[in-house]
Amino acid sequence: MSFGPLAVQAAASINPERLGRRIADLAAFGARADGGVDRQTLTDDDLAARRWLVAEVLHRPGYRVGIDAAANLFVQRGASIAGSQAVLTGSHLDTQPAGGRLDGAFGVIAGFELFDALDHTGICTRRPVEVVIWTNEEGCRFAPGLMGSNGFVYPERLSGARAVRDSRGMDFGSACDAARRDLLLAAAVGGWPLMDCPLARPLHAYIEAHIEQGPELEAAHRRVGCVHTIQGVRWLEMVFVGRSAHAGSTPSHLREDAMVAAVRAAHEVLAFAAAETLRDPRLRLTIGRFDVLPGSINTIAGEVRFTIDLRHPVETTLAALHAQVEVLCGAAATRRTLLDKPPVSFDPRLHQLTMSACEQLGISHQSMLSGAFHDAMPLASHVPTTMLFAPSRGGLSHNPAEDTHLDDLVACTRALALCVVHLALEH
Amino acid sequence: MSFGPLAVQAAASINPERLGRRIADLAAFGARADGGVDRQTLTDDDLAARRWLVAEVLHRPGYRVGIDAAANLFVQRGASIAGSQAVLTGSHLDTQPAGGRLDGAFGVIAGFELFDALDHTGICTRRPVEVVIWTNEEGCRFAPGLMGSNGFVYPERLSGARAVRDSRGMDFGSACDAARRDLLLAAAVGGWPLMDCPLARPLHAYIEAHIEQGPELEAAHRRVGCVHTIQGVRWLEMVFVGRSAHAGSTPSHLREDAMVAAVRAAHEVLAFAAAETLRDPRLRLTIGRFDVLPGSINTIAGEVRFTIDLRHPVETTLAALHAQVEVLCGAAATRRTLLDKPPVSFDPRLHQLTMSACEQLGISHQSMLSGAFHDAMPLASHVPTTMLFAPSRGGLSHNPAEDTHLDDLVACTRALALCVVHLALEH
Repeated sequence: MSFGPLAVQAAASINPERLGRRIADLAAFGARADGGVDRQTLTDDDLAARRWLVAEVLHRPGYRVGIDAAANLFVQRGASIAGSQAVLTGSHLDTQPAGGRLDGAFGVIAGFELFDALDHTGICTRRPVEVVIWTNEEGCRFAPGLMGSNGFVYPERLSGARAVRDSRGMDFGSACDAARRDLLLAAAVGGWPLMDCPLARPLHAYIEAHIEQGPELEAAHRRVGCVHTIQGVRWLEMVFVGRSAHAGSTPSHLREDAMVAAVRAAHEVLAFAAAETLRDPRLRLTIGRFDVLPGSINTIAGEVRFTIDLRHPVETTLAALHAQVEVLCGAAATRRTLLDKPPVSFDPRLHQLTMSACEQLGISHQSMLSGAFHDAMPLASHVPTTMLFAPSRGGLSHNPAEDTHLDDLVACTRALALCVVHLALEH
Repeated sequence: MSFGPLAVQAAASINPERLGRRIADLAAFGARADGGVDRQTLTDDDLAARRWLVAEVLHRPGYRVGIDAAANLFVQRGASIAGSQAVLTGSHLDTQPAGGRLDGAFGVIAGFELFDALDHTGICTRRPVEVVIWTNEEGCRFAPGLMGSNGFVYPERLSGARAVRDSRGMDFGSACDAARRDLLLAAAVGGWPLMDCPLARPLHAYIEAHIEQGPELEAAHRRVGCVHTIQGVRWLEMVFVGRSAHAGSTPSHLREDAMVAAVRAAHEVLAFAAAETLRDPRLRLTIGRFDVLPGSINTIAGEVRFTIDLRHPVETTLAALHAQVEVLCGAAATRRTLLDKPPVSFDPRLHQLTMSACEQLGISHQSMLSGAFHDAMPLASHVPTTMLFAPSRGGLSHNPAEDTHLDDLVACTRALALCVVHLALEH
């Protein structure tokens, strides 16, 4: 695959100093005292961050802004071919309550840096280049996550999502409407050109840059990950019921200890996962919650429930693992499936494009899975999609200490620029 | 052992209707909507219950009331030999937040029923008979429990206990002082005779009646348990530290999963306990708490801590079991001993007295361990002590559904009466 001189020029024009400064400036919106960020979706901090970012480019000629019914915000840099489908990049700005500066934010800032690089070199693309800020990726304020990108791809799901309330009783629909009014007011005041943004409108391609949120790239000393698949995930809950009683006065033969049953099952499941992983390292099994009722030192547990987060990139394998785990937990356990997301494979041509872009730029890279969900997951059902990962220092994410070396962010942004401009120039 | 006619007469004068009514009346103080009782120590409900109970007898000749520095309340029925040491019975009135009508309350009401039986038959004992209401047995409002009885036996520990604060910031010392003022005011208003109640004053004997809070008597179809020992208990905490990371994006070989280490250790400990209990059914081991940080479905546990409640009636065995459990948890676990109470053996003569009393009265009974703590635990270091248990329906306690058949409460109270009057008549 060969890249033209304009795409190469755009990638070369990525400015490390500008990229780093904009990430730092964005982190001021919802800044925590510990250096982290708490920017919940569609709050004042989030809307202020959106207005500030948009204002960075909207005074320049050729830019338009729009917002859809899920409050996803789009900034478009115009094209030489009227009516052509856009090449979309971007990510989200909302964070975990004790989040960092990069999860989501990096992908959005990378898109704005690409705008600057295009403007700096004066490149006019055939297709529009667009940067999206998806609403409520994290799902912290309104559960579950991916609400904006799911609403974009599956408009029929939006009415259900609009009814979801936050902890203060505000519903997602009203928050979206308020965000739409907020942007339209800012556009009126700023004299910004507006574009029409229907849900599920056709696009040419979507490439999302994101931090890895895992340790693989750092461990392999690679600057960029080219993601071919988001692995499938199932969340299971296993419930064990016993009879709560006094730990001192209840002899062993008269006990019904839910802890004994739950620990035995958890041990079987974890031992199975450890053995299975030796055969198939793609398997990921995590017991992350383990709740005990009444949870008192001197009381035999009346109920124990634990969760299993089970992931694999192959749906049939995932289903087989799920079945085996249920058998290991025994017939006495009540089981519920809390989440079932099949694996998503990205567009092979776009994946190859990202690999070639890294080769062209001399950036160390690898083809890899994404362990986490991303807005790219629903997008892949709608438009050819792929993702680029930057390494996470120590594998840390959802943490104020979340960090990536600026050189790696720059490398990832250059690869993104090369791909997006290449796609925006093609017929 | 033979019981005299006065003791037998007192036992025969226990009145089931009066005993049942007083238990029901007492349960109105701190009554919960679900039929249970929430009567936290030294609250208005608790003080009102104390005043109501005291007023039941203090208008009669020969009764005196007093309170000590730990707010333990004593009602004394006078003796024919001035200055003789009293035979003490009683228990506590404070409950768990979702407690029942009998835990503690039964022992106190049994003492007042004995007063009525003595007054009804006109028996004058050589030694005073006293009923005590120990303060803060449960340890719910002020932690830990047994604060009143420990303060009575070990006055030097009281100053430390006085500084303990409840969840609203009130300290135990101030609550004791307020309870003392409350009783002295009631005595002044009622014209009740007062007695001096120094801590650690000498007593002739202490016998506490209590519900079993376990299933053994019910399973064995016995009406009364004669307690020879309170088993020893150690509370251990095991802490496993890993590294919190994303469940999706962290491959197995790069994980430090605290859950894997903790489940393995808990499984070893519980399997050991199951095997060991077959050899020695006196062993009781419970894992009652299991806390996970951060405790999120899709996050690898960064820290897991669980508790072990380990009990055995023989101190050397308890120590050996403790050591084995620590080995099973592995060197990586950080361990803390949260509580270490050696077994307490009750006075052999008093234990034999309770067995003989049941035989004399034709009450089905058994010699048994107490699995739970009781105020009798510290008392046994100070005065010859023993306990009588009534069966708990379904073994339930610390529960609004806590219940005992009235016939069983009557049987236990008759045995108590026979023993206490026997002791109060002896030289």
